[in-house]
Amino acid sequence: MSRILLSLLLLLSLAQAEDTLASWNDGKSKNNIISYVTSVTDPKSADFIPVVDRIAVFDNDGTLWSEQPMYFFIYFTMDRITALAPQHPEWKTTEPFKSALNKDIEGISKTGMEGLSKLIMATHADTTAKEFDKIVLEWIKTAKHPTKNVHYTQLVFQPMLELLTYLRANDFKTFIVSGGGIDFMRPWASEVYGIPSSQIVGSKLEVKYDNKQIVRLPKLRFNDDKDNKPVGIHYHIGKHPVAAFGNSDGDFAMMEYTEANKKYKTLQLYVHHTDDKREVAYDRKSHVGKLDKGLDYANEHNWTVVDMKKEWKVVFPFEMKR
Amino acid sequence: MSRILLSLLLLLSLAQAEDTLASWNDGKSKNNIISYVTSVTDPKSADFIPVVDRIAVFDNDGTLWSEQPMYFFIYFTMDRITALAPQHPEWKTTEPFKSALNKDIEGISKTGMEGLSKLIMATHADTTAKEFDKIVLEWIKTAKHPTKNVHYTQLVFQPMLELLTYLRANDFKTFIVSGGGIDFMRPWASEVYGIPSSQIVGSKLEVKYDNKQIVRLPKLRFNDDKDNKPVGIHYHIGKHPVAAFGNSDGDFAMMEYTEANKKYKTLQLYVHHTDDKREVAYDRKSHVGKLDKGLDYANEHNWTVVDMKKEWKVVFPFEMKR
Repeated sequence: MSRILLSLLLLLSLAQAEDTLASWNDGKSKNNIISYVTSVTDPKSADFIPVVDRIAVFDNDGTLWSEQPMYFFIYFTMDRITALAPQHPEWKTTEPFKSALNKDIEGISKTGMEGLSKLIMATHADTTAKEFDKIVLEWIKTAKHPTKNVHYTQLVFQPMLELLTYLRANDFKTFIVSGGGIDFMRPWASEVYGIPSSQIVGSKLEVKYDNKQIVRLPKLRFNDDKDNKPVGIHYHIGKHPVAAFGNSDGDFAMMEYTEANKKYKTLQLYVHHTDDKREVAYDRKSHVGKLDKGLDYANEHNWTVVDMKKEWKVVFPFEMKR
Repeated sequence: MSRILLSLLLLLSLAQAEDTLASWNDGKSKNNIISYVTSVTDPKSADFIPVVDRIAVFDNDGTLWSEQPMYFFIYFTMDRITALAPQHPEWKTTEPFKSALNKDIEGISKTGMEGLSKLIMATHADTTAKEFDKIVLEWIKTAKHPTKNVHYTQLVFQPMLELLTYLRANDFKTFIVSGGGIDFMRPWASEVYGIPSSQIVGSKLEVKYDNKQIVRLPKLRFNDDKDNKPVGIHYHIGKHPVAAFGNSDGDFAMMEYTEANKKYKTLQLYVHHTDDKREVAYDRKSHVGKLDKGLDYANEHNWTVVDMKKEWKVVFPFEMKR
């Protein structure tokens, strides 16, 4: 191919990226993304990665959608407690159910991991997989965020949707690797993010096959957070990722593991929640999505840190309609 | 569209199926497959299945490749015992290692599941995931079957390769759901079957994330057989399959679960090993891949049972070169 034609093709691919990543302001993060993808997809580049190894992993809470003032699955859990309360009159006076019924997040927090676990088991288990799917779908279609007053799926990050599309257009396979429940995400996340259910990895309850159905049991099987994220990646994907996207210290191991892929050039990107107007500004001291150790490491290791306030033209899709 | 054009298109699609399923003799099984796929992929059919729900699950041992005279991973295990023996002089006189060193399958059998488990832990664990990948790949490239004297990957079933291709050409997503080790299959099965590693489900050892690597531990995490196959499907795929392919009672639950998908028309197919000349004839009384309860159920429930001897023009790809 002639040099001129090659240059034209490069310009064309840059123009396409510009178009796909329309909600990203020009700047370091956008440049890093485009330059990475361009170099690893060019068959003539020393950094070329074969399509089969283009594995990109995304955290969900705080990375693909919001997680403030509290992880959205906690709202689901509280709403389920309310729905199930008529069958459990004792919940009115027993913690952690009492706090959940009063939507008292601080009260739930005081009951610790044990309290939270009780709430999850009472609301996520003892159904068939099919029933639970329906419950989640019904909730996601109807429930609204306590302060934003929009459906939870309206609180996905527009620039990240564009990033998913851009990567897939460049033959990356995109996966979610979340601390959230795998069966809480799968019913809606496939459609919202364009990611098939088999590419969604998350925390799991035990299930059993019983009478031709999958039945959910009240016992945690896998907590897909921190050092368990690389484990979940190994079990579900079976390949070493080349690109990882997160927003908290809970994603650090997944991103560190991706960086340790010495076969290929890799990309690590932290979404840094700096926008106290359009979303919420938080990092080192937050109880939700704490980003402290990871932020220092990212700065020392040349990871991409997205300044949401400066680098995102819009945060949520509904802003685009203004 | 005109009636004539539609008829022409149907003829064309039948001709294409004929071509793709070239190693299948005309007969009941081939008809069942083509008629199923044609009806569920026709947007005007009452049986139409949207692409996103076209999930097909395949057993591996005895369904996609041979499993006689013994599951191939047992040969891998014995060969690994031999390779590791210099570091374990005590194995020469201790069971089950002694039998493994002597390639004495009957001797191993006498040590039961406990003995087999010891052999697997001694050969499949205590490496990083990367090291184990290399070991498996090296073995699969060099080792030869004890009686056929060809590489193990030459003992895949040509008609089943064609079936995988045919289903994918009709927008089915194909998965392996095997009792075999997930990490024993993934290094080679992607290439041999055209199935990405994330679509391969199998038995698992515990692993941990340690020093930026995945380390394999000598403890079984999941035995992906019998009633656990639907469980593995739920965890990895997160959708109810519409088509299931197996060869033994170990696949029965997976096929029964698929049949229980009431939302869509489903297909269940058993590969029945009837060919004592080109392969091995076995079913109800075999120690490997026993097909007894499943065969009765299949006959009563109108499942497709492939008579390998009568319905397959060739069994293995190398026969095509004759």
